[in-house]
Amino acid sequence: MRAALADERGAVLERREVLTVRDREMEALVRQIYDVAGEATGGEAVAAIGVGAPGPLDARTGVLYHPVNLSNDDIPLKELLERRFGAPAFVQNDANVAALGEWLHGGHGQTEHLIYITVSTGVGAGIISHGRLIDGFNTTAGEIGHTIIDPDGPPCPGGHRGCVEIICSGTSIARAAHEQLEAGRASSLRLPVTAEDVTAAAREGDELAGEVFFHAADTLGLAVVNLIHLLSPEVVVIGGGVSQAGDLLFDRVRAQVQRYAMPLTGRGVRIVPPGLGQDAGLVGAVALAMRQSGLEATHGT
Amino acid sequence: MRAALADERGAVLERREVLTVRDREMEALVRQIYDVAGEATGGEAVAAIGVGAPGPLDARTGVLYHPVNLSNDDIPLKELLERRFGAPAFVQNDANVAALGEWLHGGHGQTEHLIYITVSTGVGAGIISHGRLIDGFNTTAGEIGHTIIDPDGPPCPGGHRGCVEIICSGTSIARAAHEQLEAGRASSLRLPVTAEDVTAAAREGDELAGEVFFHAADTLGLAVVNLIHLLSPEVVVIGGGVSQAGDLLFDRVRAQVQRYAMPLTGRGVRIVPPGLGQDAGLVGAVALAMRQSGLEATHGT
Repeated sequence: MRAALADERGAVLERREVLTVRDREMEALVRQIYDVAGEATGGEAVAAIGVGAPGPLDARTGVLYHPVNLSNDDIPLKELLERRFGAPAFVQNDANVAALGEWLHGGHGQTEHLIYITVSTGVGAGIISHGRLIDGFNTTAGEIGHTIIDPDGPPCPGGHRGCVEIICSGTSIARAAHEQLEAGRASSLRLPVTAEDVTAAAREGDELAGEVFFHAADTLGLAVVNLIHLLSPEVVVIGGGVSQAGDLLFDRVRAQVQRYAMPLTGRGVRIVPPGLGQDAGLVGAVALAMRQSGLEATHGT
Repeated sequence: MRAALADERGAVLERREVLTVRDREMEALVRQIYDVAGEATGGEAVAAIGVGAPGPLDARTGVLYHPVNLSNDDIPLKELLERRFGAPAFVQNDANVAALGEWLHGGHGQTEHLIYITVSTGVGAGIISHGRLIDGFNTTAGEIGHTIIDPDGPPCPGGHRGCVEIICSGTSIARAAHEQLEAGRASSLRLPVTAEDVTAAAREGDELAGEVFFHAADTLGLAVVNLIHLLSPEVVVIGGGVSQAGDLLFDRVRAQVQRYAMPLTGRGVRIVPPGLGQDAGLVGAVALAMRQSGLEATHGT
């Protein structure tokens, strides 16, 4: 959990970072949010608050719906923050605020069309199209992790098969390697195994690790091809833990786009790592607060 | 090929319709466009021209890139029309203008989030999000037909497998039935077979026809689930020849959405046939001309 205090130009003055409490009790979580935000502000009055939070959430009401791993209850986060800090609060999906951060301050140029994909324990996306964040009718747009890309793929919690997340997330990469190891496949990998382990072993030429990692990377590449065909972005930023694999991942994704995107559609599209690294969400939350409260609406870097 | 003359409120005064010439010679095609448009206008001066054309095209320059079945050459349609008729011309993908038509005049209410999918000889889409047409960086957005939904599916001309069009289009439905019949499968169907034949036989309970049609319908349903997760539309309009199957198609698509769309994301989404029928494109082309030329920018019926 990260919090920052920014000045009226959006420059970060103070920041705090803590491990999120994991007892699923809403009161403990909210207390921690108050504490971390309070420490970052040092008790100073703020003009606006921006939050990137895990979904599912309603960005209009600022309510989080029993967020996975965080709380058994729905959390009316906007209302709670506004009452506590006496300033307007704006809540958005974490991938959406990261997309805002990368778009406005990621150093990707003056584009109006950027999609940020985070590939981490889960997979999500934030879509900027024609110069605005697309969150849609239910403020839930960007859920690329739950789009189906292989109906014969592994079963998903949602009841179907082969969604992007169940193949491409770090969790899924680790699980696929785990299953193969349990089944007795030869490999330099040893249990317990993480996505980082699989990535490292794939880089060293381990066959099992390569199979698992490159299947995830190639599938992510197809998901990017689909995004390009559907939305014609100029920039696709891939962040999150799995993107740390660098060229091992990006080369495969770019090759899929090279191979399968229609010529006119794929023309000039850049597929790049985040310019802000792990700060995309924090910078984006500041931008969200400033834009939504009318403090700033310009496109800077 | 259809052309209409509309008044300053967008009401259609005259219309013409002809079978498009199919000799792939650009001159013949352009002459036909001039003739049909000239007949519709009756020689009157026009204030603006709107065109829905098959892709691939660049909506900014108004150039069609050797459109399939129409021409062996690129066609600078915007430039040609502006020179011939002495008025600004605006060219967009045919699915995009149909989306505009359905959004503004299809009777779907005051939504800001509508996606129009045409399922015909090909499959395409037009996306309205946050009250504007999304055509993206290369003006090529909406190419849902070329998104990959089953990497183990039938091979596509684009070199990959299992794009939406290769499974769901009318052409693909007819081809799949044809292949099964050629392989000797028992069926009430007889060669040569069309998508309409397959639909009718599926309705009558023919096993082969049902298999083919419902696979296409269920796959289209997954594509709609993916659109809902990515873009959170309020209204999904499905038009084109295959949509004439009515409830036989819509019941399957709605069932997929019911089953697989995440609760918050799928809330309140309507999946409906076009309100304008085959006129969506014509009405949308008028709307395109009026909005782009500044004649009208309001949201009508």
